[in-house]
Amino acid sequence: MTGHAPPTLAGIEGAAERLAGVAVLTPLIESPALNARTRGRVLLKAETLQRTGSFKFRGAYNFLAQIPADTRTHGVVAYSSGNHAQGVAAAAQIFGVPATIVMPADAPTAKVDNTRGYGAEVVAYDRQTESREDIAAAIADEADATLVPPFNHPWTIEGQGSVGLEISAQCAALHAQPDEVGCGGGGLTAGIATALADRNPSTRVRAVEPIEFDDATRSLAAGHRLSNKPGASSICDALLSPSTGDLTFAAMHALGVTGLLVSDDEVRAAMAYAWRTLKLVLEPGGAVALAAILSGKTETKGRTIVVILSGGNVDAALFNACIEAG
Amino acid sequence: MTGHAPPTLAGIEGAAERLAGVAVLTPLIESPALNARTRGRVLLKAETLQRTGSFKFRGAYNFLAQIPADTRTHGVVAYSSGNHAQGVAAAAQIFGVPATIVMPADAPTAKVDNTRGYGAEVVAYDRQTESREDIAAAIADEADATLVPPFNHPWTIEGQGSVGLEISAQCAALHAQPDEVGCGGGGLTAGIATALADRNPSTRVRAVEPIEFDDATRSLAAGHRLSNKPGASSICDALLSPSTGDLTFAAMHALGVTGLLVSDDEVRAAMAYAWRTLKLVLEPGGAVALAAILSGKTETKGRTIVVILSGGNVDAALFNACIEAG
Repeated sequence: MTGHAPPTLAGIEGAAERLAGVAVLTPLIESPALNARTRGRVLLKAETLQRTGSFKFRGAYNFLAQIPADTRTHGVVAYSSGNHAQGVAAAAQIFGVPATIVMPADAPTAKVDNTRGYGAEVVAYDRQTESREDIAAAIADEADATLVPPFNHPWTIEGQGSVGLEISAQCAALHAQPDEVGCGGGGLTAGIATALADRNPSTRVRAVEPIEFDDATRSLAAGHRLSNKPGASSICDALLSPSTGDLTFAAMHALGVTGLLVSDDEVRAAMAYAWRTLKLVLEPGGAVALAAILSGKTETKGRTIVVILSGGNVDAALFNACIEAG
Repeated sequence: MTGHAPPTLAGIEGAAERLAGVAVLTPLIESPALNARTRGRVLLKAETLQRTGSFKFRGAYNFLAQIPADTRTHGVVAYSSGNHAQGVAAAAQIFGVPATIVMPADAPTAKVDNTRGYGAEVVAYDRQTESREDIAAAIADEADATLVPPFNHPWTIEGQGSVGLEISAQCAALHAQPDEVGCGGGGLTAGIATALADRNPSTRVRAVEPIEFDDATRSLAAGHRLSNKPGASSICDALLSPSTGDLTFAAMHALGVTGLLVSDDEVRAAMAYAWRTLKLVLEPGGAVALAAILSGKTETKGRTIVVILSGGNVDAALFNACIEAG
């Protein structure tokens, strides 16, 4: 348990104010071709177009903005497979403070390069044998720096929740009432569910996961937190956490979120569809909600569904393999 | 000479009404990374997200909508390297009339497949030895069908001009006053220039072309129409017309449009940048205006520039080669 208070609507509204003029107000994109294919109305929230290429910038910036200035100046530390890394690095660059990011040695090159590109120092670790939490904590201790958690903190969740406020306003402008929102990642899902519980209480929020990393789906069904089996693998490098956080789980569970599972092949097909038909670049973990729609994991006919495109940071070789196969 | 009246603002406003609810109101996207790189404010009009993956749907639909219904039912014919082909095919499908498209035998496979996917019949011709105009005219004659010109007709130009009205309204909503708009393609440029001459008269409109297909640039500088040299080549398959139309030239010239030239390597680099940083898929011809900005062909520092991303229909092999090189 973290001992933190749960994320709140007021916290999300505060995050939206902090992010105004800093984060990109990403468009809600509609594709007639996708509507025809799904026989519904699909609205794509393109967080791929967010600063750093994923929604993670929102939570990172919202966190850094709330660290007292005299503490923040000592720097920040984070561990991340890549998108939170870039989010923290970019936020630290904006605030002009040093950032050190602990990243797996097998993280996509694009994510490592981008993180360094925002001025952060990158420390590599072995995902199989080392604890990223321990490494990050030791670095933070030594520098008197602040650890920026990737998802299980109210400030992080509230930052991601600003996506939900935008979805609500953008749907209203289109006179659309979303029946369902599909998300990838616990912090994002918890944040959006918290925002929509107020703004669009009839909207169902779904957490979409890779089949072998179904901790949220099983936890939400069981009513308590369960971990992923060790040794699982997926191309969705952004979604390989061993378990959902206690804060994210509690928020998702209380708000009626349920899970959906997609295979790596369904993710590859979604990436190829996004490239070929939508003209959008998705990374594997950023394509899970679209994959769920395209592979029929949830009813789309006659319904309005918001699909979060949560990230687009992917290496060329993997991307090419996906679009040539798709 | 076509003998047609020039495109007008009223015609563009009529096109916008016809297209409302049919065409996608494409987003005007802003990227903090691109702004930082150019030290200006760049607003990306993403016509890649338009129906059929390019702006050409607008002109095609606006044209078909104005053919008398009892004539339109006989079908439509067009010649096109691919984007106008898809635009006409998709518009014909919406109106439920047959379409035959004359396409070069070396057109990108994606464009041919998509055109067939919208239900059109595709007739191939050899770009070096056959006249696409003659082939299309013969097919239209035989079927009593209507020829839909790719750019040199007021209805086509006015359809593309609806992009200009959207740019004006979207810039106003952002409190942005565009100093310059960069376009690819004569019909699009003429349409946008006509719209902006009314809405944003201080905005300069630039026609961006591949170096070896600089007919518009040279024609606008000379004050009369000049053709491209035979035997030229470029990866920008959408921009290989031998010369600008008389209507498009007259509109561009009267409204003070001037040209900018980019190399194929600059186009490849722009496609790679769009993939890696913007998370958007561009085809070569759709990337020329971005290429002009990234390669410093026009001053960006401290200025607000709208860049049209005019199309995203590209084969995987070419795309992969661009992003791996970039």
